[in-house]
Amino acid sequence: MSAVDFAAFVEKLADAASEAVLPFFRTSLGAIDKNAGGPFDPVTEADHAAESAMRQLIEMTFPRHGIIGEEFGTIREDAEYVWVLDPIDGTKSFIAGMPIWGTLIGLLHHGQPIYGMMAQPFIRERFAGDGQHAEWRGPGIDLALIKRTLRARTCASLADAILMTTSPLLYEPAKLEAFRRVEAEVRLSRYGCDCYAFAMLAAGHVDCVIESGLKPYDIAPLVPIIRGAGGCVTTWEGGEPAQGGDIVASGCAALHDQVLSLLRQRS
Amino acid sequence: MSAVDFAAFVEKLADAASEAVLPFFRTSLGAIDKNAGGPFDPVTEADHAAESAMRQLIEMTFPRHGIIGEEFGTIREDAEYVWVLDPIDGTKSFIAGMPIWGTLIGLLHHGQPIYGMMAQPFIRERFAGDGQHAEWRGPGIDLALIKRTLRARTCASLADAILMTTSPLLYEPAKLEAFRRVEAEVRLSRYGCDCYAFAMLAAGHVDCVIESGLKPYDIAPLVPIIRGAGGCVTTWEGGEPAQGGDIVASGCAALHDQVLSLLRQRS
Repeated sequence: MSAVDFAAFVEKLADAASEAVLPFFRTSLGAIDKNAGGPFDPVTEADHAAESAMRQLIEMTFPRHGIIGEEFGTIREDAEYVWVLDPIDGTKSFIAGMPIWGTLIGLLHHGQPIYGMMAQPFIRERFAGDGQHAEWRGPGIDLALIKRTLRARTCASLADAILMTTSPLLYEPAKLEAFRRVEAEVRLSRYGCDCYAFAMLAAGHVDCVIESGLKPYDIAPLVPIIRGAGGCVTTWEGGEPAQGGDIVASGCAALHDQVLSLLRQRS
Repeated sequence: MSAVDFAAFVEKLADAASEAVLPFFRTSLGAIDKNAGGPFDPVTEADHAAESAMRQLIEMTFPRHGIIGEEFGTIREDAEYVWVLDPIDGTKSFIAGMPIWGTLIGLLHHGQPIYGMMAQPFIRERFAGDGQHAEWRGPGIDLALIKRTLRARTCASLADAILMTTSPLLYEPAKLEAFRRVEAEVRLSRYGCDCYAFAMLAAGHVDCVIESGLKPYDIAPLVPIIRGAGGCVTTWEGGEPAQGGDIVASGCAALHDQVLSLLRQRS
């Protein structure tokens, strides 16, 4: 099966996640602290309900596929096909009522990300890609759903770039310094967007996204969308990004090289 | 006329702004730098089109009312009724493609904010209030539009609070220090939300919003929404907020007192 064959199934997964999550959005719900005593990391009932629904569909449809999920861990990780699921990327936005979280669904083939989706059910928009092509569906001007091809934009110089990161508070000191070297050069820097930052890069509204300490499920589903839109995504060292870690994405190769070089510079 | 009588007219203003703005959202458009050489402050064609459309409606319907607008300045500011307009609050989110900007429409009577609305046309949600009552309209689970009464939530201790601010980069050093004193005490701190932070406070998802250097049109339209939902909003000194400046809002009076006291502490 090719990535395209899985596209319709990914829509079903996103539908199931949406149905599970929406009843919990913008209601008062308690968040359990996964790392008691550590950094605040809310998990919601919505997260659990959505991942369960997606895992159930995968087990029923593709019982030999592996699954890596944010909430319920990993099974059959050596399978030919492995699903990578983050039911709510941006849980902090979610609990603050901000509709800038997304359900991330990725598919690895022999460890390589070959298809990915980011779905935002409250806004009714989905971003999907297979590494060669990427597409957006969401509300048009008359609010009926429309489709658009996603294309990252070129940006010759950092001085013209819009940069996004989730939060400078998440960086270790040495990495924060590296991030600040890039931030000091850009036109505009925005915080707090999680998966939306990468989606906006794929859509050509943002030029660079820098993150530190990502998990595989935070980034693997986004890789085929970013690349499908013509963007670049690697680790800060220029390596493959699907395993997570310190990740940088850019709208074009020229900007990506500038950013990698600033991130690596020893001060 | 009471605030309630103006409610239907405010809907018309929001409709006009929405129609003017949506065609420009998530398209590639140049942003003019209002303060050339100064901090980046994008102005879009959308901003101008929306404010023009609203001003025209006001001039036609209430020719003796005053208008304070972000884009086209002030007329008849001593009138009994004065409209306060910010066509796109959150222009940086807007140009980055993030749907967390809003059109702000406020009405002052003898200088006091008596009615306000925050409208987000891409998400199709509106927050409105008259100081006594506040209401939300937006997509329900089945995506049909529904209504809800807005109620801010109580929060006994800062240790349980969710705090929002647009960006720590916008604070002067002494004010940043004051902000950091509060931030150090809260459960969760989120950046980058402009008017949405106040709307989420009115909706009971966020406990405290701190901002520095707001203009009247950044806050006056939100005051009747926050107060209508039972929340508190003042300057950092505890004064009336409608003129802007350094502003703090809280979901309940007890938390507001704690925050004001931390902000005022001399370190």
